[in-house]
Amino acid sequence: MSASDRLDREGMRRHNLGLVLRAIADGDRPSRTDVALVTGLHKTTVSSLVADLIERELVCEAGKASNGTVGRPAVALELAGDRYVALGLEINVDHLTYTAVDLLGRVRDQGSVRQDNRARSPSRSLSALAELIAGPRNRLKEAGAIVVGATLALPGLVDPRDGVLLVAPNLGWRDVAVVDELQAVLGDDLTLRVDNEANLAAFAERWYGAGRTHRDFVYVSGYIGVGAGIVSNGVLHRGETGFGGEFGHLTVEAEGPPCACGSRGCVEALVGLDALLRRAGKPSSAETTAHELVEAAQRGEPRTLEAIEVVGATLGVALASTANLLGSRAIVLGGYFAPLCPWLRAPIERELQRRVLAFPWSPIEVMRSELADGAAVLGAAALALRAILDDPASTPTG
Amino acid sequence: MSASDRLDREGMRRHNLGLVLRAIADGDRPSRTDVALVTGLHKTTVSSLVADLIERELVCEAGKASNGTVGRPAVALELAGDRYVALGLEINVDHLTYTAVDLLGRVRDQGSVRQDNRARSPSRSLSALAELIAGPRNRLKEAGAIVVGATLALPGLVDPRDGVLLVAPNLGWRDVAVVDELQAVLGDDLTLRVDNEANLAAFAERWYGAGRTHRDFVYVSGYIGVGAGIVSNGVLHRGETGFGGEFGHLTVEAEGPPCACGSRGCVEALVGLDALLRRAGKPSSAETTAHELVEAAQRGEPRTLEAIEVVGATLGVALASTANLLGSRAIVLGGYFAPLCPWLRAPIERELQRRVLAFPWSPIEVMRSELADGAAVLGAAALALRAILDDPASTPTG
Repeated sequence: MSASDRLDREGMRRHNLGLVLRAIADGDRPSRTDVALVTGLHKTTVSSLVADLIERELVCEAGKASNGTVGRPAVALELAGDRYVALGLEINVDHLTYTAVDLLGRVRDQGSVRQDNRARSPSRSLSALAELIAGPRNRLKEAGAIVVGATLALPGLVDPRDGVLLVAPNLGWRDVAVVDELQAVLGDDLTLRVDNEANLAAFAERWYGAGRTHRDFVYVSGYIGVGAGIVSNGVLHRGETGFGGEFGHLTVEAEGPPCACGSRGCVEALVGLDALLRRAGKPSSAETTAHELVEAAQRGEPRTLEAIEVVGATLGVALASTANLLGSRAIVLGGYFAPLCPWLRAPIERELQRRVLAFPWSPIEVMRSELADGAAVLGAAALALRAILDDPASTPTG
Repeated sequence: MSASDRLDREGMRRHNLGLVLRAIADGDRPSRTDVALVTGLHKTTVSSLVADLIERELVCEAGKASNGTVGRPAVALELAGDRYVALGLEINVDHLTYTAVDLLGRVRDQGSVRQDNRARSPSRSLSALAELIAGPRNRLKEAGAIVVGATLALPGLVDPRDGVLLVAPNLGWRDVAVVDELQAVLGDDLTLRVDNEANLAAFAERWYGAGRTHRDFVYVSGYIGVGAGIVSNGVLHRGETGFGGEFGHLTVEAEGPPCACGSRGCVEALVGLDALLRRAGKPSSAETTAHELVEAAQRGEPRTLEAIEVVGATLGVALASTANLLGSRAIVLGGYFAPLCPWLRAPIERELQRRVLAFPWSPIEVMRSELADGAAVLGAAALALRAILDDPASTPTG
């Protein structure tokens, strides 16, 4: 066998290993025979690949398969949750967050600290993040888990290929090589990625939320900044520039209030958390949490309810523009918009009905994200875990 | 051979016939050997399929191939332009238009009549269109051409699968079974399709205009109504509802002037031709043509120039929202915006630069459509011609 033949055969086996793992991940506790049917691979090949996946602790046997054949009952296969975890990390305006998620989507560890990152240089925030995850990483290691990678969510324009943050207006950060800097602070070879927080939250919705029932939706992330992730036919639409989904910078009032981005009248400047708090006559987000705002609404505080109504209408106008352009049928409200859904829904739906040309023939469903605050870090961890499903041979053998 | 085997073999041959025809259409006068290389089919299979395509007059031999092999020069193949044509038809607010295009993209016949279709019922406009194309259809037949189909472009929400116009606000039409009605008036079995005019114009750009250099662009169609066709990775993005691209109904001023759609402050209500004429102090589009507006701008008429400046800025604001959302790098201005490009470009670019968050890292090219007024009917004809390239066996054998 020549060297190039051997490379071809190794490449093929590596490819098939991923096929089999994804068939097990997507299936309902399939048997080896089921996997052979779904993948089109020979049953002996499947058996050999499954043995490899079991050795790597990616897959385990789990009793009888749901559709066992007559005679000897087939053995069911499922993903093994215990061995591999990935970290989702987030630096946002006033907090640092991490979550550790395993292959079964279970959160194994999580934590958050409140700190104003506007007041800090990127390197100080990145150092604080590295400190925050040092303990959890040790705990996971002691529990026998392997951390396969981490993804950092940031509220701004991110170039995921180069690992660079271009600009985060609300943090006041610009041109930061975040992957290299975080790698240097961590001082080890943990595989790092970085992406926009709304894209990662949409990614979490794709796998654990709205995506279970919808192939197309627009996820809107509301916090101090506002962004969106556009999922089209199950795939995140980044656009030709790679920076699509900047819903927070749609113009709602051409000469409206100034936005942190330098423009005027952006969605974010009108419906971001600080804009809402100002309108409700409350201290800024540095002193008021979204939770307190929800409580004020629940108490029926008139000025808060009025402010939410105005924000809902403005959000509705911008979502109507979005739906007209994209041909959307489903919108998922995340971030601080999620707990305010009971009050935001009516004004949003009124504007959609009024402004979306196709609405009478194709109404739009407004959904509340079930993942809420944790969506970005959950999606960040999921992105790192997907890398294993794409190439299981990247994990160590047993 | 069983019946199902024969069906399979016929299906395979039909599929391969399309493969070969598209390889010839996309190639640079390829030889049969070139086609075999590109398609992966055996050379004798290619020869047999090419013979079939020549018999159908879809392909012809055209001297020596550009990259003939050593020895006997290979024969070049190209599409045969003479036999097949398709019709592009358009009903818009104040005109009816048709164009006949052949497989080589040559316009073989065209014409237009000015008439106000707002004053007419859909069936009267469709009858007038049928009358308009009766003469040209006879002329084409006498010239030996086969009209393989026609597509009707309409300024509104269209369901292409059912052949139904849902609503065309500027025509005042609603729920019209246009394909069935036009078929009944024509009284023959010409294959008919219907689609939105901006989508069809974008389709024309994809094949004959901006698409030759760009895989991603937003085509904006400006007339009395305003619409867009979003081309993403070479494919028209219709969205989940099928009604994406309704750029004309993005909200620019939430409580701005009323729009024909029933909402307020839509792009169309602010930058449509009638809105511009009103601002320039000129009679409406029923009495003033876009050409007269261009002449006024060329003469340097202050009120016209000022009106164009305002329209350009408003268009720029809406295009900035579009680019933020879609991650666009290229915008093509069509319809009446095309001849006004020399004056519209500066205010549009100013707003893009001011409002698109990613602009400093990924600037946006604003292009003038070279196809201008004829884009929608050209795209309409092209759509019908693509059906032949997709399934050449649908044509009669010689």
